[in-house]
Amino acid sequence: MHFKSIDTRSVISRTLGNIAWGWKRISAVGDASNLVLRPELPDADIKVLRKQMQECLNARGGEVSARSHAAVLGQAYLELNDEGRYRFLKLIADEFGITEDDLAATLKQYLQEPDDSGSLLAQIKDQLTPPWMKLFTQFNALPSGVKFLVDMRADLVRFSREQPGLNSLNNDLQQLLVSWFDIGFLDLKRITWDEPASLLEKLIAYEAVHEIQSWDDLKNRLDTDRCCYAFFHPRMPDEPLIFVQVALVNGMSGNIHELLDDSAPLEDPESVDTAIFYSISNTQLGLRGVSLGDFLIKRVVDDLVGRLPNLRTFATLSPVPGFRQFLENTLESDETPLLKPGERDQLKELTASRESDDAYEIIETRGNLEPVLMRLCSHYLVNEKRELGAADSVENFHLTNGARIEQLNWLGDHSEAGMKRSLGIMVNYRYKLADIEKNHEAYITSGEIKCSSKIRGLLK
Amino acid sequence: MHFKSIDTRSVISRTLGNIAWGWKRISAVGDASNLVLRPELPDADIKVLRKQMQECLNARGGEVSARSHAAVLGQAYLELNDEGRYRFLKLIADEFGITEDDLAATLKQYLQEPDDSGSLLAQIKDQLTPPWMKLFTQFNALPSGVKFLVDMRADLVRFSREQPGLNSLNNDLQQLLVSWFDIGFLDLKRITWDEPASLLEKLIAYEAVHEIQSWDDLKNRLDTDRCCYAFFHPRMPDEPLIFVQVALVNGMSGNIHELLDDSAPLEDPESVDTAIFYSISNTQLGLRGVSLGDFLIKRVVDDLVGRLPNLRTFATLSPVPGFRQFLENTLESDETPLLKPGERDQLKELTASRESDDAYEIIETRGNLEPVLMRLCSHYLVNEKRELGAADSVENFHLTNGARIEQLNWLGDHSEAGMKRSLGIMVNYRYKLADIEKNHEAYITSGEIKCSSKIRGLLK
Amino acid sequence: MHFKSIDTRSVISRTLGNIAWGWKRISAVGDASNLVLRPELPDADIKVLRKQMQECLNARGGEVSARSHAAVLGQAYLELNDEGRYRFLKLIADEFGITEDDLAATLKQYLQEPDDSGSLLAQIKDQLTPPWMKLFTQFNALPSGVKFLVDMRADLVRFSREQPGLNSLNNDLQQLLVSWFDIGFLDLKRITWDEPASLLEKLIAYEAVHEIQSWDDLKNRLDTDRCCYAFFHPRMPDEPLIFVQVALVNGMSGNIHELLDDSAPLEDPESVDTAIFYSISNTQLGLRGVSLGDFLIKRVVDDLVGRLPNLRTFATLSPVPGFRQFLENTLESDETPLLKPGERDQLKELTASRESDDAYEIIETRGNLEPVLMRLCSHYLVNEKRELGAADSVENFHLTNGARIEQLNWLGDHSEAGMKRSLGIMVNYRYKLADIEKNHEAYITSGEIKCSSKIRGLLK
Amino acid sequence: MHFKSIDTRSVISRTLGNIAWGWKRISAVGDASNLVLRPELPDADIKVLRKQMQECLNARGGEVSARSHAAVLGQAYLELNDEGRYRFLKLIADEFGITEDDLAATLKQYLQEPDDSGSLLAQIKDQLTPPWMKLFTQFNALPSGVKFLVDMRADLVRFSREQPGLNSLNNDLQQLLVSWFDIGFLDLKRITWDEPASLLEKLIAYEAVHEIQSWDDLKNRLDTDRCCYAFFHPRMPDEPLIFVQVALVNGMSGNIHELLDDSAPLEDPESVDTAIFYSISNTQLGLRGVSLGDFLIKRVVDDLVGRLPNLRTFATLSPVPGFRQFLENTLESDETPLLKPGERDQLKELTASRESDDAYEIIETRGNLEPVLMRLCSHYLVNEKRELGAADSVENFHLTNGARIEQLNWLGDHSEAGMKRSLGIMVNYRYKLADIEKNHEAYITSGEIKCSSKIRGLLK
Repeated sequence: MHFKSIDTRSVISRTLGNIAWGWKRISAVGDASNLVLRPELPDADIKVLRKQMQECLNARGGEVSARSHAAVLGQAYLELNDEGRYRFLKLIADEFGITEDDLAATLKQYLQEPDDSGSLLAQIKDQLTPPWMKLFTQFNALPSGVKFLVDMRADLVRFSREQPGLNSLNNDLQQLLVSWFDIGFLDLKRITWDEPASLLEKLIAYEAVHEIQSWDDLKNRLDTDRCCYAFFHPRMPDEPLIFVQVALVNGMSGNIHELLDDSAPLEDPESVDTAIFYSISNTQLGLRGVSLGDFLIKRVVDDLVGRLPNLRTFATLSPVPGFRQFLENTLESDETPLLKPGERDQLKELTASRESDDAYEIIETRGNLEPVLMRLCSHYLVNEKRELGAADSVENFHLTNGARIEQLNWLGDHSEAGMKRSLGIMVNYRYKLADIEKNHEAYITSGEIKCSSKIRGLLK
Repeated sequence: MHFKSIDTRSVISRTLGNIAWGWKRISAVGDASNLVLRPELPDADIKVLRKQMQECLNARGGEVSARSHAAVLGQAYLELNDEGRYRFLKLIADEFGITEDDLAATLKQYLQEPDDSGSLLAQIKDQLTPPWMKLFTQFNALPSGVKFLVDMRADLVRFSREQPGLNSLNNDLQQLLVSWFDIGFLDLKRITWDEPASLLEKLIAYEAVHEIQSWDDLKNRLDTDRCCYAFFHPRMPDEPLIFVQVALVNGMSGNIHELLDDSAPLEDPESVDTAIFYSISNTQLGLRGVSLGDFLIKRVVDDLVGRLPNLRTFATLSPVPGFRQFLENTLESDETPLLKPGERDQLKELTASRESDDAYEIIETRGNLEPVLMRLCSHYLVNEKRELGAADSVENFHLTNGARIEQLNWLGDHSEAGMKRSLGIMVNYRYKLADIEKNHEAYITSGEIKCSSKIRGLLK
Repeated sequence: MHFKSIDTRSVISRTLGNIAWGWKRISAVGDASNLVLRPELPDADIKVLRKQMQECLNARGGEVSARSHAAVLGQAYLELNDEGRYRFLKLIADEFGITEDDLAATLKQYLQEPDDSGSLLAQIKDQLTPPWMKLFTQFNALPSGVKFLVDMRADLVRFSREQPGLNSLNNDLQQLLVSWFDIGFLDLKRITWDEPASLLEKLIAYEAVHEIQSWDDLKNRLDTDRCCYAFFHPRMPDEPLIFVQVALVNGMSGNIHELLDDSAPLEDPESVDTAIFYSISNTQLGLRGVSLGDFLIKRVVDDLVGRLPNLRTFATLSPVPGFRQFLENTLESDETPLLKPGERDQLKELTASRESDDAYEIIETRGNLEPVLMRLCSHYLVNEKRELGAADSVENFHLTNGARIEQLNWLGDHSEAGMKRSLGIMVNYRYKLADIEKNHEAYITSGEIKCSSKIRGLLK
Repeated sequence: MHFKSIDTRSVISRTLGNIAWGWKRISAVGDASNLVLRPELPDADIKVLRKQMQECLNARGGEVSARSHAAVLGQAYLELNDEGRYRFLKLIADEFGITEDDLAATLKQYLQEPDDSGSLLAQIKDQLTPPWMKLFTQFNALPSGVKFLVDMRADLVRFSREQPGLNSLNNDLQQLLVSWFDIGFLDLKRITWDEPASLLEKLIAYEAVHEIQSWDDLKNRLDTDRCCYAFFHPRMPDEPLIFVQVALVNGMSGNIHELLDDSAPLEDPESVDTAIFYSISNTQLGLRGVSLGDFLIKRVVDDLVGRLPNLRTFATLSPVPGFRQFLENTLESDETPLLKPGERDQLKELTASRESDDAYEIIETRGNLEPVLMRLCSHYLVNEKRELGAADSVENFHLTNGARIEQLNWLGDHSEAGMKRSLGIMVNYRYKLADIEKNHEAYITSGEIKCSSKIRGLLK
């Protein structure tokens, strides 16, 4: 769309550009000459690269110098294309992992002799730590080093989907990032319209649930009866890691269009009773597997409780991403106790409509679809399981955090995306502060799904 | 001395006080009741404590709640006395380490069957990670959590000197801090007289090499022809981790009293040619084993090169902490080729003087001691080894960093401390930017000690 | 236009809203009860108002209390409509000015007797200072008081255009603002894309020369080869007072469309030789008569010289706002030596076209209009005078600042506004650093207009 | 004393040094050549100086250039000695004031003809504004220009005490500073131990009431149960203009030694009921006549009320600077109804003691002096007048602000200064929020002095 002055790709390339620039200012100490590689990293260049990596790991010239050499390596990585980057990472994965033979020898020794001093255990730990971990750490000493690693991880995640041989490398980098992005290191910040435009444009780019249509839309979402919070890492101060958007309202909101309507009158935030979390977006593909959402929601609740003492209710207004698929599967299966006579045909017409507008029109013109769809959707949320947990991914996230299913909202989101995901139905998950721990515990240990009496009513 | 408004102990207790205060504001989510333990942690309280630790590790109620419980645990720790803290840490060390039997079973399986998926290796890694690592991380999510862990490590370092059974715990916490205090996470800051008094008083408290006598002395050390740099961690912004003091002068400085003389005229920093690093102090006992000094020196050199382009020479003015002991040992040994006839008696009189003032008087009144002491000291620095490296600890640090021995300075420090350490002799280690890597390499791999021709002249 | 999320009016009302809010938090000391007036300030309310003003001026209860009462007065002013505000200001103008009879008595005394102590002169000064000056100052002590006075001055400027009796009040407030907005109190700031969105939207609203079309357009104008500078007052930190936009280019730019084209490739600002000032906008109507533009240009030149040492040329790309009107006047006059035979008809067709698009089409399709229009425009700039100075207002501003006329640009701005102002012609005024003082002096004292040989060539 | 690392003189010279440095970076525009004058400004240099001043005032080359020339002038001023500075200022006072003949002509015209347009009044105002006002303003545009003017005013205040001919210049500069240091432009800041040492050392230097003995003493005065507030001007951010020290205590404090005792236990500021203002110091001689104290006290009360809602009582603990002198005068007078028989001799012995220690010993050893001294002191405070107001200067300040006399404190300050001022007696002035306005009004209009019943009891 024309109004978007930024897309994720350009955000990332700009960052990488800055990194590259930062690394040109090489230290007076341990100066390292440049490394010029062809973008697709042909075999001839692999040799040069291998040598440079070995030098980093040997740390000849000292640890400070080694990090200068790592900078050159990182700089070279940034200039590769996807083909080259895959080959770069594959080289690390193939040649800088653990040495299983040495490990096996130590393991045998450990199993045969007493290890009173613990030195064998220490040796095992050491042998289990691949050299690539050292490489990762060396990248960290450089300007924007943390961002570099997060972006390299994003490459690993992308490549791992299609290419073999990177899993172990990917897992180890994830472990490192889990440690470095521990919640204790992150800053929670409230984001207002007074934030730099260069930061706010990233919200527009990163918003994943309800697209931000324009700067006006963004301004509306940051007005006095809305708020937005994000986690930041001190070494990536310009990058929100995850952010949540909250509406301050009276009563449980069930309709996303009303929440996002910028012509709606402002509420006085001091007097409202309910905070609706209507969008949570992760921004960094490279942090996949680093759990931040649970902490974000609860830190935000803490902050809101402190600032706005009239708030009584904390809930989400969430999509049901898996419902339409579930419905279509149900309609395919020949026998199902879920459908009453006649409902199958009625619903088939609906799901047959490929265009969202068509589906919406059918719903609008047939007044009688609400009961069956609401019943099926509540069944989907309450009874459909994947292993112990709920089948719906968003639901699983909030139940794990200790929320319960509070309310289904008919036509809560009739946008194209909303029709595709769930034929317009939205759901509120509610965080009752006093119940969070026990809800979590019941869900985690026995898969028990808590819901309100309203929901139970729909099930019948 | 009366002018000191702070000592290290009070700095630390204040910090802990703040932590305690911070933790009283317990989250609205996952509220955890208080844990009251008696200061010396008697056996009865150990039981309560064990239960609380297990709950943290089980993370019943979810990860956010677990961290609230960890806060209670940390709060309780802070209120224990040394006896109680030792028992607290010993409980962790004894009961929350790895389970060797389970580990051995997996190891056997790994040695017997192929592990194509890598799942056995992953399991081994997991079993090698003690539960106490999780506890450490849980402490991190709380206000001042990083400082808490650094202070807990300081306790571990102290207790480990005299008490058994904490080594493994101590090592693991060190490893965690090595990762969290990686140079890539630290901020280098120049500290001026415009810094908060609450920060500057910590320099007075922490200075370990040449005691800061008063606020006037400190102000003089931060004047325009001096500078001070420190590393900070973003989660401990009020705590310098290590700091270095630099004098900007013309020519190699050989006398610490002249450097610290606050009546000396100011040099114009834009025109001087030499930067003398005359003091480096680590401040956190809890970061013992986390290497920061090498990076600090080289980052400071980088910054100085950028700001003051007339600087040509970078060197230290350092104590020789081991020389007097070496001299006394030499005088004890019956046969040594190091002493010429008559020197032994002459020197014995000197070393017999227990009071520094006496030794200084002897030196001052006997004009002829300089040649022999300078010869012996240069011998000590160049030839005395501990394994591959130099015997002197300060020397070993700078040689490892790639410096060389440049110049010995007769009576460079005739303070009480200076006489006790080295009978007043000081040494300059010089960092020649072009040679740092190869000096480091030669020293590390073959123990070769580089020195100037002046030093070689003294050896004869 | 739809993309504008702000207009000047809403900016101002928001500010006033904040002021109102700030003033509700009335001090614990000198609390003053509220003043409720009807929006149009009927006669009955005038009485109440007069009394409150007198109390402020008497400062009963002390100066701190008086300022609390002034707060109430200011608050009441903000809630009036235009009619009421005019009556409010007229009340001040009519009743709180100087007392001419008292003044005359003192003047007579002064002319008759010697005033050795200077006390009569002091008394005269005092009697010449109207009470309203004290009122103005009392408003200043309140949150956003400076902004309040600037906005009240804007009202005065607006009302003075149509209503009598406010001139003296208006002039005195202008004098006060001249003193308070002395250049010595202002901050020059460079504005980048990292500035708060709440500030940047004001640039969009306030830009007066080449409208900012969208946030994308704004971002382009703040890219690395552009810059924007503004003056701020420390008591109005969120309000740019005047701002200038600069393009960093190679060679003299003659076309505004090229400068504003966001698809043009970026220049490297380190290597360009020319800074083009292409837009200067005053933002505060209330600061009319407070001269800021001259200082702004020269401070920006200073900053650019320091940051980008390759810059050699400083010039504007300016509109010629009076040219079309001059041309039409010329065509009206029966006899003029300026037109050659046939030119009058040719040009009449052009000026007859009321739509800019038509005029542009005529120019585009008739190849031969450039010579005559460029000749007439250079004549207009060089020879048309208003008293001593140049007739064109923008020209007069730059010549007063010491610039010279450098170059005329054919079709430099064929936007609607550009066609209306000057049939598309733009002009560069050049600031040669070495000549600024003497250019200024020659222009100011004898009306001499300096121009380049190119311009002189066009005149022939 | 040895502990003072700063005195006022050195503070000022350092500031001036910075100014001088700042002014060396002369603008690229309107560059002005240097002005070298001999320190004592001999007659020959006066000529050069006069010419430079005239050029500034003519503003040849434009206003920006004129300010560059003013910078040169200011720079030259800073390098003069006191003799030279006096001659510099005298030159301005003698030659750049108003032209009385021109003024008289206009006045006559104004008295003879109607001035409907107001242009004659405008001309009179103009002629009443001396050219030196323009010079002052021109200094303002330069780095630290405000501080320069404040320091120049300090010179004027000093010189005016002994030298004639500067009064009018001094008054006009005072008027300008009154306008520029209007309370609306000042920032109130709370000063804590986290403030820069370079700021805190100024408190030590400037404290005028109870000398700050050391950095430890200062730290104690900034501890959690103390606070310190100061006003700052945005153009002199490193200079507190006036500061007040407050103790948070329970009940009315009557003893300054207890307040300043750094071994006293800390009070919990959240629970105390009384704020004692025990020291107010003006710091800038150049701001003599610019009233700041009243606003400071009331702003601080506002801040304290907001932060510490348990505070009920606001009072000072003040010296009685005029009491001892009053007592000595009373003892000199032959007949006075104030003394009862025998008291004169008793007191004469006391006032005869020139050494404070002697007086203190007499008081300590004679138990019976308290009643008579307390009676006389209360009489002094309540009944001794200077015109309408109280004779005591500190008392007059607080009564003007709306306080009342609350309590006399026997031996409240037995330091050397305290004995000299008032034989150790201190007084509390109390600010009852509800009474401030009417107390002020009664005192200002009729000289009525409010006091507590305790004080009235002492009078009997």
